Amino acid sequence: MIKNITGQKDFIENLRGKKATFLLALSNTNTANIKGITQAGIPNMIHLTPTLDSEFVCTGEVRSLNNIAKTPKGVPTPALITRAIHLLLPYANIELLDLGLQIRPKLNYFKIHRFKINSSDSIHTNANINAHDIFQKGIEFGKNYTCKNDYIILGESVPSGTTTANATALALGYDCQNKFSSSFKNTPDKIKQDTIKQALNNINNDDDIFDILSKVSDNMLIFNAGFILGVNNKIPIILAGGTQMACVLLVVNKILKVMDGKIDSSNLSLCTTQWVVNDVNSNIKDLINMCDFKINSYYSNFNFSTTKYPALKLYDDGEAKEGVGAGGSLIYGLLNGLTQELITKKVESLLKE
Amino acid sequence: MIKNITGQKDFIENLRGKKATFLLALSNTNTANIKGITQAGIPNMIHLTPTLDSEFVCTGEVRSLNNIAKTPKGVPTPALITRAIHLLLPYANIELLDLGLQIRPKLNYFKIHRFKINSSDSIHTNANINAHDIFQKGIEFGKNYTCKNDYIILGESVPSGTTTANATALALGYDCQNKFSSSFKNTPDKIKQDTIKQALNNINNDDDIFDILSKVSDNMLIFNAGFILGVNNKIPIILAGGTQMACVLLVVNKILKVMDGKIDSSNLSLCTTQWVVNDVNSNIKDLINMCDFKINSYYSNFNFSTTKYPALKLYDDGEAKEGVGAGGSLIYGLLNGLTQELITKKVESLLKE
Repeated sequence: MIKNITGQKDFIENLRGKKATFLLALSNTNTANIKGITQAGIPNMIHLTPTLDSEFVCTGEVRSLNNIAKTPKGVPTPALITRAIHLLLPYANIELLDLGLQIRPKLNYFKIHRFKINSSDSIHTNANINAHDIFQKGIEFGKNYTCKNDYIILGESVPSGTTTANATALALGYDCQNKFSSSFKNTPDKIKQDTIKQALNNINNDDDIFDILSKVSDNMLIFNAGFILGVNNKIPIILAGGTQMACVLLVVNKILKVMDGKIDSSNLSLCTTQWVVNDVNSNIKDLINMCDFKINSYYSNFNFSTTKYPALKLYDDGEAKEGVGAGGSLIYGLLNGLTQELITKKVESLLKE
Repeated sequence: MIKNITGQKDFIENLRGKKATFLLALSNTNTANIKGITQAGIPNMIHLTPTLDSEFVCTGEVRSLNNIAKTPKGVPTPALITRAIHLLLPYANIELLDLGLQIRPKLNYFKIHRFKINSSDSIHTNANINAHDIFQKGIEFGKNYTCKNDYIILGESVPSGTTTANATALALGYDCQNKFSSSFKNTPDKIKQDTIKQALNNINNDDDIFDILSKVSDNMLIFNAGFILGVNNKIPIILAGGTQMACVLLVVNKILKVMDGKIDSSNLSLCTTQWVVNDVNSNIKDLINMCDFKINSYYSNFNFSTTKYPALKLYDDGEAKEGVGAGGSLIYGLLNGLTQELITKKVESLLKE
């Protein structure tokens, strides 16, 4: 079932039965190389995660490695959920956004938008992002993007993205301590907090918003903020993600504030999983409500209670939680008649393969 | 299974697998305020029924009242069936036609076409409809309407609509005594017949067809007759309803006769429930056959024989029968692979919520 985080049901009910394009924003930040900061992937090969995720969502194969990205505890990537939905009830179209991948996905035929964006450095030193340039690229892409379907579901795969999102929101002045999620059940607080603290230390008093984003953010956050403003409400967008996507909204909000701009957000929404919404260590609702504009946001109450696979049970225990558009994909599935039983079985079948 | 009332299977089989837009025509006539004339809603709040039906089909919520519209005997609205189908196998698009609602549905995002049409008075005095204006509005809407899908399913919610339909057909000279259905199993014949008699008494010898419609009809019948002529066969239309929708055809037929016009009706059809077709107190087949043009018409043999819910069993007993596009929705569901079992379970789940 689909439940509200903020706003009303009408936005999402009006998309029932309509066709979606799935856009997957992919990026690497070297923040992910800080030992123990993320479990979104295979240790020492974390940088491969977005590449593998995109290969798997598109083809069901991980081509740049032999195995699908698993966390040290064996939690499989949420790309499994997105792929399962796509198999049961295909997206009308999938396109990838290369926002600074270290390794290009081995894919033919699939549209991969490239923007000449490099992967970013670790925020604990300085991410060294040309934030203004990436923001402009996002705006241009949003302005010119033609969606052949009724709406866009925008997912992401950025390892250590919750850390960069948390640092970004704090650096932009939001009171958001303990509101950001993590791929871990037991967040490696010390490592994350030290990293964020170091990142914030790099900010100077006279830094403007783009200076700040350049130092402590990641490409996905900046580009998608631009994309949203470029699309300018002309087609419904579902931000498919958890607190990272909430941070995209906070970046949009701050940019509007600085530039004295306004946004019609009636066609903008966020969809995530119940694992994010029920996470006691974060608070996505509070983050969304920090925006000065209204957002309709939703989660599915999908869980793995009926599975016998221990690796999937870990989701219900609070590991992994979200990513690769899993939350938005679940909503899309439920909107179009899929059931928890069908989705669970399809995810299981992918683990067996 | 889908069965023929009139015509051949080919029209409906050719729509198998195709995408449908669901249009819901909503109107109030004060005829519904005559005590005991209809059970389509909550006594003293019958005027709310089309408003609540549209809210429920679109969102699963009744917002203008706390409870879903039930008849005094506890027969729940056929909107449950339409919503269940939409959940299992969503319409590609839902749009509402406000043809004179007293209370506007509390809906955002959903397209509600408004035509500056007021709800009509009771036919027992004089409905006081500007029939020519509403007919023209129907024609214009049909001419200009762009359907993004393959065909249109047109449902209605007009409490006491079978009484106004019966009066209309009689006033237009059709020999249709005892051919019109009712939301009751045991039709309140005395009340209905008295009302119809009073309505017919208001007609003068020199009244033209629009004068007659103005006095004894309802907005839905007149508008949809115009709509059909405006669409002019350019896209398949399923009239999703029982004898009220048959009356729309009779209005079209009479207008064509008076104006010496012709219609290509090859893309026009009617779909209803078996509860209407098997009703011993009415005869939809005879009504359809009174048209000078050919119509393909169908019903589903869906019933609630497998349910344990007494409220739903009442449908099989002959209460409620049709409305809110339920018959057309059942055909749409069966055309696209749904089963009686799946539909029944989903309807039951809506009663449980």
